[in-house]
Amino acid sequence: MTITFTVFKGSSSGEIKKSETTIPSIKAKEVLLEHTHSGVCGTDSHHIKQDMVLGHEGVGIAKEVGSGVKDIKIGDRLGFGYVRGGCDECQYCKLGYTWHCTNTAQIFGQTDLDQGSFATHSVWPSTRLVKIPEAIASADAGPFMCAGQTVFVPMLRNNFKAGERVGVIGIGGLGHLAIQFAAALGCEVVVLSSSSNKKQEAMDFGAKEFYNTNEMVAGDVKKIDHLMVTSSALPDWRVYAELMAPFGAIHPLTIAFEDLVFPYGMMILKELTIVGSCSSSMEEVKQMVQFVVKHHIKPVVEKFPMSVEGITEAFQKLENGKIRYRGVLEVEVGSL
Amino acid sequence: MTITFTVFKGSSSGEIKKSETTIPSIKAKEVLLEHTHSGVCGTDSHHIKQDMVLGHEGVGIAKEVGSGVKDIKIGDRLGFGYVRGGCDECQYCKLGYTWHCTNTAQIFGQTDLDQGSFATHSVWPSTRLVKIPEAIASADAGPFMCAGQTVFVPMLRNNFKAGERVGVIGIGGLGHLAIQFAAALGCEVVVLSSSSNKKQEAMDFGAKEFYNTNEMVAGDVKKIDHLMVTSSALPDWRVYAELMAPFGAIHPLTIAFEDLVFPYGMMILKELTIVGSCSSSMEEVKQMVQFVVKHHIKPVVEKFPMSVEGITEAFQKLENGKIRYRGVLEVEVGSL
Repeated sequence: MTITFTVFKGSSSGEIKKSETTIPSIKAKEVLLEHTHSGVCGTDSHHIKQDMVLGHEGVGIAKEVGSGVKDIKIGDRLGFGYVRGGCDECQYCKLGYTWHCTNTAQIFGQTDLDQGSFATHSVWPSTRLVKIPEAIASADAGPFMCAGQTVFVPMLRNNFKAGERVGVIGIGGLGHLAIQFAAALGCEVVVLSSSSNKKQEAMDFGAKEFYNTNEMVAGDVKKIDHLMVTSSALPDWRVYAELMAPFGAIHPLTIAFEDLVFPYGMMILKELTIVGSCSSSMEEVKQMVQFVVKHHIKPVVEKFPMSVEGITEAFQKLENGKIRYRGVLEVEVGSL
Repeated sequence: MTITFTVFKGSSSGEIKKSETTIPSIKAKEVLLEHTHSGVCGTDSHHIKQDMVLGHEGVGIAKEVGSGVKDIKIGDRLGFGYVRGGCDECQYCKLGYTWHCTNTAQIFGQTDLDQGSFATHSVWPSTRLVKIPEAIASADAGPFMCAGQTVFVPMLRNNFKAGERVGVIGIGGLGHLAIQFAAALGCEVVVLSSSSNKKQEAMDFGAKEFYNTNEMVAGDVKKIDHLMVTSSALPDWRVYAELMAPFGAIHPLTIAFEDLVFPYGMMILKELTIVGSCSSSMEEVKQMVQFVVKHHIKPVVEKFPMSVEGITEAFQKLENGKIRYRGVLEVEVGSL
């Protein structure tokens, strides 16, 4: 029995198109998910002119489970993200870094263009699905699948310590979670924003200090140990290199297509590190989910219906910087 | 009784000038060194137009020891480098990172311009002197005080592991030591050079592979985990980003005054790290010295007399890329 479901794709004109994906059946190690929600990420909009299903912050319920899947049962609430799988045999797959697979990396926007989270369903390899604990509402789970793991993994891999000063640039989908994660780690969170109208919310998320970058005097800011860069465009690195403490680490998480142009002398003399990162192993995702539950971390979401109109409106608000703080598409029963 | 000794300074014309430093006496925690040798570093030539004593790879014998110095006695063979001291009380001094002192950092070229290793003597704080073990000849000791620690400290701080692939660009004073250190750590050393005429020597230093960068096809080079950049100018980062393995780390050690212009997309997608470093705590220097002795690491030096003529010739050969691999000035008894 073939499986057919509704999907929402980009198109050459940039309009969202409603369409269908049909597959013959699920494979032994796959799961058919019925989606309830999907987060809306800036990266989705980079693919809006491609004929592909958008969305990579998926949340759904297992409706059908392949014969080879042991740890998932029908009815489980599950999430998925940017990475779909790899060969499972190369050195990177064995370490869980599937997206660096040297043979058959399957990544959002590059492979499996008929699957995504802007859809009523998807068929997903069981190894790249994470169980959503009861404490996390389905509408809140999506933003952790990309935004959440993106900001959490630098903290995990680089062992952020309580008391360290963590700067956050860009208070949007990623940034508002970065503040919460770093505050929960006991870090002193310093928010750097070009507008003061997010100040109160930033403090409510757990920031200790807030600086309006248009008014800030660099010398007045106590130096920063880690800088999380979640702005939609790369910042003027000279300003931020100045703010860094010796041995400080900069974690650029912005998606950008230009070069990094960094003041080299300051990097060497202050012994700064710039740490690239982009994705997480399932082990890292699971650690994030546990951390989220333990520390009651919760995205602020703005809901839109999972429809052409809903997706179009979400992208427009995202482009205009009007979403506070993460758009989430919701599948309304009977709406499709 | 005042102390007067011969020093060699830069000058506005770029000529080396012989001169004298006179100080009233040494302080309680200082040591008067009679120099035997000094390494010649590219950084010295950056100061050649300044009225300051050059040289920061000093080796000498303790001739007079301050009343408050406990662990050094007259006759000890000692080395010193780029950093002279700090306030001893700020957070960085307490950790041994004296050059990041927030109060009174004393660094080559910025303070104490009447002291340096291009001289017959110097007066140096005992806390920034390291004992040279018998196994290291005085003529070989100088290059470790700057070049050696510069290449060793990234390996130490970033925990280079046996079997990791370590690329080295720039086979000069720093690079020829980087090959030896990394090989001694059990790493697979991959030398990347624009000319093949250093190939045999690179292999003799411990390299496993040698690529002429003008003939190299990036896809043929097995990916690199750590890249030590010791070239005299910053390289084309696009070429080297391509060579890096996922999670690879780049250690730029070149002194340059331009910006770092790095392919941002590759940094993020490969999750590369760029790690700035410039100096070492005395604890790190001591670890290096022990490592040098244990693994019989030895610079290849080219000697010049400690004189205006000797220094001038050393700088000329350095500028022309003709020194293999580190210039060392030697104080000839009775020559001054």
